[in-house]
Amino acid sequence: MSKTIAINAGSSSLKWQLYQMPTENVIAKGIVERIGLEDSIFTIKYGDGQKFETVENIKDHEVAVQMLLDHLIELKIIHSYEEITGVGHRVVAGGEAFKDSTIITDEVLEKIEELAELAPLHNPANAMGIRAFRHILPNILSVAVFDTSFHTTMPAVNYMYSLPKEYYTKYAARKYGAHGTSHRFVSQRAIEFLNKPAEETKIITCHIGNGASITAVKGGKSVDTSMGFTPLAGVTMGTRSGDIDASLIPYLMRKEGIDDVNDFIDILNKKSGILGLSGISSDMRDVQKAAASHNDDAELTLEIYADRIRKYIAQYIAVMNGVDAIVFTAGVGENAAYIREAVLKPMTWFGIKLNTTVNNLIHGEEAEITAPDSKVKVFVIPTDEELVIARDVQRLGAKLR
Amino acid sequence: MSKTIAINAGSSSLKWQLYQMPTENVIAKGIVERIGLEDSIFTIKYGDGQKFETVENIKDHEVAVQMLLDHLIELKIIHSYEEITGVGHRVVAGGEAFKDSTIITDEVLEKIEELAELAPLHNPANAMGIRAFRHILPNILSVAVFDTSFHTTMPAVNYMYSLPKEYYTKYAARKYGAHGTSHRFVSQRAIEFLNKPAEETKIITCHIGNGASITAVKGGKSVDTSMGFTPLAGVTMGTRSGDIDASLIPYLMRKEGIDDVNDFIDILNKKSGILGLSGISSDMRDVQKAAASHNDDAELTLEIYADRIRKYIAQYIAVMNGVDAIVFTAGVGENAAYIREAVLKPMTWFGIKLNTTVNNLIHGEEAEITAPDSKVKVFVIPTDEELVIARDVQRLGAKLR
Repeated sequence: MSKTIAINAGSSSLKWQLYQMPTENVIAKGIVERIGLEDSIFTIKYGDGQKFETVENIKDHEVAVQMLLDHLIELKIIHSYEEITGVGHRVVAGGEAFKDSTIITDEVLEKIEELAELAPLHNPANAMGIRAFRHILPNILSVAVFDTSFHTTMPAVNYMYSLPKEYYTKYAARKYGAHGTSHRFVSQRAIEFLNKPAEETKIITCHIGNGASITAVKGGKSVDTSMGFTPLAGVTMGTRSGDIDASLIPYLMRKEGIDDVNDFIDILNKKSGILGLSGISSDMRDVQKAAASHNDDAELTLEIYADRIRKYIAQYIAVMNGVDAIVFTAGVGENAAYIREAVLKPMTWFGIKLNTTVNNLIHGEEAEITAPDSKVKVFVIPTDEELVIARDVQRLGAKLR
Repeated sequence: MSKTIAINAGSSSLKWQLYQMPTENVIAKGIVERIGLEDSIFTIKYGDGQKFETVENIKDHEVAVQMLLDHLIELKIIHSYEEITGVGHRVVAGGEAFKDSTIITDEVLEKIEELAELAPLHNPANAMGIRAFRHILPNILSVAVFDTSFHTTMPAVNYMYSLPKEYYTKYAARKYGAHGTSHRFVSQRAIEFLNKPAEETKIITCHIGNGASITAVKGGKSVDTSMGFTPLAGVTMGTRSGDIDASLIPYLMRKEGIDDVNDFIDILNKKSGILGLSGISSDMRDVQKAAASHNDDAELTLEIYADRIRKYIAQYIAVMNGVDAIVFTAGVGENAAYIREAVLKPMTWFGIKLNTTVNNLIHGEEAEITAPDSKVKVFVIPTDEELVIARDVQRLGAKLR
């Protein structure tokens, strides 16, 4: 029996989860926050609801990793480093190069750093996490699991933008999508519930969290997805605008006296979406509370939020010329019954017949929320990206043996 | 019997059509091109296939209008100016102010010029045309017909972008749409073909020309449309990109060494779309010829073009929770049977059953192109924006009397 650790490194954070494999039990998990800042926060949850937390200055990701490993031993979660035989790293952008999770070599790491152009905030952070582990545990199997890999099966008709073609050939400007690990996980689970050969299934997966994306999964493969060149595009998100008319950019830059287009893109990423529209919060729960007390902006925000998801679902039914099942997952998708209802209820023409009683009961657990005679089934399926990472480490490790 | 002239003024052009009203007969029509440049071209078609053309320098719109009126008399199309009792001007942007066509007063003209911010290329040109006619024929009824008026019935859920709300309240940044005159004309015609009360109809109109937009028309009213704040957004067009991920802008500006975001928006408007993707032409006919000889870029361009239209049709079925009829109109929509087929054939799940034999026969004439048992009807309906303009002059004139 061996242990595998799944890592999600951000620019100032490191989230991790330690699995006993192949049983897939979570032995411990934790997060290091405010890396490189004062008063970094280091948390571990383990055992039977036990929790360890300390606040001290953690100067970089390598220190964070060392501290994490030390505490695994100190807290007797493991006895020696050797128990950990594999580490899987989430990497946001894999470009066109990485069509599957990949064992990390020097070359792979270099390529991940090159792809920072496609995810300037994420890939360098992911690479830092990888370097830290490689330095401290140089001999264990190290695997990169890309957010984009699942979407590399998209056909050109869906990943190409209607731009001068050399922007694609010279600069790789195309749709890459994101949340691939999650879309892969929940679509594979949904296939198990459908009474037909996997290659004939048509599934639309809605990963609705603070970030959100919708994917058309045909025969188990991603054929289209709502995020684009970056995670800015698609539906309305917590702080991201989703799709807008590009002409708004010079107009609003002039109006607001903004000179650098990057500053405006920053507003689209961080101050738009639910937060911008509602003026209340980027958290759907706060907006829903305000809507419940008849705040007009909050009500409109909810309406827009559901509308944009519904529009992508309809598009993807067209992309596949049909749909067997729609899946809701991630923070909002798994828990916000009112959002699921707002999206699906006005879709009776499409043969979607929600069981509102069941839907209202379902929070964060697997369930079918449509009526038995609904032409299209709708499932809630909790996502587990960390588990996919741990499984991919296992899978690629098995190939080596 | 009185005559009405419909005017579509561009920055260096003036298109016009002279109607006998209320019979709606076209007495003459023409175009003045290259206004303000050397060798302006002045053309009139009239009578029984007669044509008059001259090339000379026409310095501004007022000279063009004077010349047009002089030639109407010289060519004996009219005997005196008094026969023309009304003029209707196409105006691109009416903002939120103009919910219907409007009799032009000094105040209205001022407002049209103010709205130039929303259509910097078009509204000033439209205003020039208006000023020229007001100067030369100060006493006739003058009406502005806005491209956007038909869309002012859109609900907030569809016209609001997921941006900080003050961008709407302070700067009127919202979706306005375009081609309203055309969507109005063909949707009203389609309602006549449907066997149900107008207020219960659900129609999707596809105005597919060099510019293209798709509109959801519920109960005779526009409820959503694919163009946005400007005509850049939506489907793939002749030279316009339609929807893209806004993050591509700073990325591609950096790659191409472009400093001014307006220059990049210019590329999105003028060098993208069919032209950019195919590298061949902005004219669908040229691209189709190339695709027929298996040019890969041309084939992909056609596929993308149809895909984006199909995706908007599906979205708008969701917006209305149903659809009775889909209408194709404008240059491509009326004539390109292969595009209609490419859009509709993979939509069998939606109950769309194309009659390909009939479809292939229909070029620029009114027809139903679906099979009798198709759940959703599809019509080809030639648009006539000039006629709508002439009719609106009549309608508003009648109110005055």
